[in-house]
Amino acid sequence: MLRALRGEEVERPPVWMMRQAGRYMKVYQELCKKHTTFRERSENVDIAVEVSLQPWRAFQPDGVILFSDILTPITGMNIPFDITAGKGPVIADPIRTMAAVDKVTPLNPDDCVPFVGEALRRLRAEVGNASTVLGFVGAPFTLATYIVEGGMSKNYTQIKKLMFSEPAVLHALLQKLADAVVTYIKYQHDNGAQVVQIFDSWAAQLSPMDYDIWCAPYLKHIIAEAKKQCPDLPIILYISNSGALVERMAACNPDIISLCHTVDMKEGIQRGGTQFAYQGNMDAGVLFGSKEMITQRVRETAKAAKEMGVRHVMNTGHGVMVGTPEENVEHFFRVAKELRYADL
Amino acid sequence: MLRALRGEEVERPPVWMMRQAGRYMKVYQELCKKHTTFRERSENVDIAVEVSLQPWRAFQPDGVILFSDILTPITGMNIPFDITAGKGPVIADPIRTMAAVDKVTPLNPDDCVPFVGEALRRLRAEVGNASTVLGFVGAPFTLATYIVEGGMSKNYTQIKKLMFSEPAVLHALLQKLADAVVTYIKYQHDNGAQVVQIFDSWAAQLSPMDYDIWCAPYLKHIIAEAKKQCPDLPIILYISNSGALVERMAACNPDIISLCHTVDMKEGIQRGGTQFAYQGNMDAGVLFGSKEMITQRVRETAKAAKEMGVRHVMNTGHGVMVGTPEENVEHFFRVAKELRYADL
Repeated sequence: MLRALRGEEVERPPVWMMRQAGRYMKVYQELCKKHTTFRERSENVDIAVEVSLQPWRAFQPDGVILFSDILTPITGMNIPFDITAGKGPVIADPIRTMAAVDKVTPLNPDDCVPFVGEALRRLRAEVGNASTVLGFVGAPFTLATYIVEGGMSKNYTQIKKLMFSEPAVLHALLQKLADAVVTYIKYQHDNGAQVVQIFDSWAAQLSPMDYDIWCAPYLKHIIAEAKKQCPDLPIILYISNSGALVERMAACNPDIISLCHTVDMKEGIQRGGTQFAYQGNMDAGVLFGSKEMITQRVRETAKAAKEMGVRHVMNTGHGVMVGTPEENVEHFFRVAKELRYADL
Repeated sequence: MLRALRGEEVERPPVWMMRQAGRYMKVYQELCKKHTTFRERSENVDIAVEVSLQPWRAFQPDGVILFSDILTPITGMNIPFDITAGKGPVIADPIRTMAAVDKVTPLNPDDCVPFVGEALRRLRAEVGNASTVLGFVGAPFTLATYIVEGGMSKNYTQIKKLMFSEPAVLHALLQKLADAVVTYIKYQHDNGAQVVQIFDSWAAQLSPMDYDIWCAPYLKHIIAEAKKQCPDLPIILYISNSGALVERMAACNPDIISLCHTVDMKEGIQRGGTQFAYQGNMDAGVLFGSKEMITQRVRETAKAAKEMGVRHVMNTGHGVMVGTPEENVEHFFRVAKELRYADL
């Protein structure tokens, strides 16, 4: 992956899979019976490393992503949360006032998330030069959706209420989160992450004019700072359902634009510009289909990126889903690793 | 609305609101206590007309949409379903085999949904020439998501499994649904609907290449047939999160393209082409904000469409949400109706 991202000649696109670590695998579901909470699994180094390595052992992907959650660092910012099996993340005291924002503290990863650094170091030691270790962070707006709504949301009404009635409160929260994200990227890099993906997963819930106000300035700041502090670290930017935002993602200047499956690969590259590398973008739903269809779509995806002349990381457009047949994931990786640019 | 859509000179854009009929209104919630099931409310003519008229009485919108559901006609195709308060539509026997598709029958609206025709006739009589009565239909793919999944879905894994492993089964179902939709549009038109909106709400869950296979051919057929059978009937096409699909929506040749809020109005018009009329596209989340913000966004939306030189129907980008303050909806309509193109 690193060679491909540096623009060196590679025989095929590197391949990994979003939300790769474990969740659709039987071996993970077995482990969950013993270690029942998400926070235990992601904050106990032995278990986090084990889960991260489950897909590595099964499929030998070119990227191994840390098993963690985008909210993991916020407890270190004086924002307690829990992740429950049925409901996802729950923040008991959502932040919706300036007084509450004032209580949010800066992030010191060495103190509050030392298990993340240790897990990354262990992953590097485990995979050596055979794969690339990826870290990841949530972007300020996406983190704020949880912090303001109190958890997952369908319609994002609480954060929009804040946004459209008390903008100064939300900007103050986003600025604190942006500073923490810069710190967290540097920390992950210093502990061995070779690529970092920024998830602004829910940014496309906003109209483009609001993306320009609530997401872009923070993303630009974070990416510019990360490039200053970690010049060798490739940054991937991911937004779910980002069909209308590709140009705006490019304007944030990541190294790699992750295209979701709702954009045609060639149109997305055209709109974002060929100076970027691209990640994606096969529909993860294809993994529920026949092996023939998976083979066909993997080839078409790689071919489209090749024909546009860009560096490419093969991936699904969004995370692999619970219930995906493991043998189909195995087939996806096999086909992707057997691709050769010369044959496309 | 009809004058605006015909391209006649109008002093301001007409305005209505998706999912306008009732749900966020106290008067509707009171009515729900007495008439507890969605099917009763939508299939009893008196109640359906009453709910449809609640926003008309409160806000005098330029469009009054029938209170109904996109699934209402499918019981008449031998696909029983129910709508439950917590879970939305439930189809107890999802259709996933050719044998099951074979049992789906053609739609005869006079026999199975006579209450829809009667409600439309009554609505026309109630609003007269003071507003436009809108009917609506679900598009084949979106209807099929419910019929194949068995109800609402988060990841659409069942329909994608069918799509990517037994495409002939899904095409057979979609063809039957497309024929029924043509019949249903004509029936609504014959009973007084002056505009019909086609909801292919979940089409953007597909990659564009799959939209071209599973949505576009059926939409094109339906719209072409509707134009042949009801040449005076304007057709609106709506897709949720359609940011990457605007050009493809235009290729289906509706009269009005409904832009969701995830697309910038000017960029959307540019991409779709100025020969179409456009509907939308204020973020319905702005209705949770301050009155000043609502005023500002209504004006900006109308101004953007005016500057692009297209016919425009003011609306939110998707449906108004439960929990929206009624006074903010009232403000939205007041501001929209006070707009004058000459002042923008």
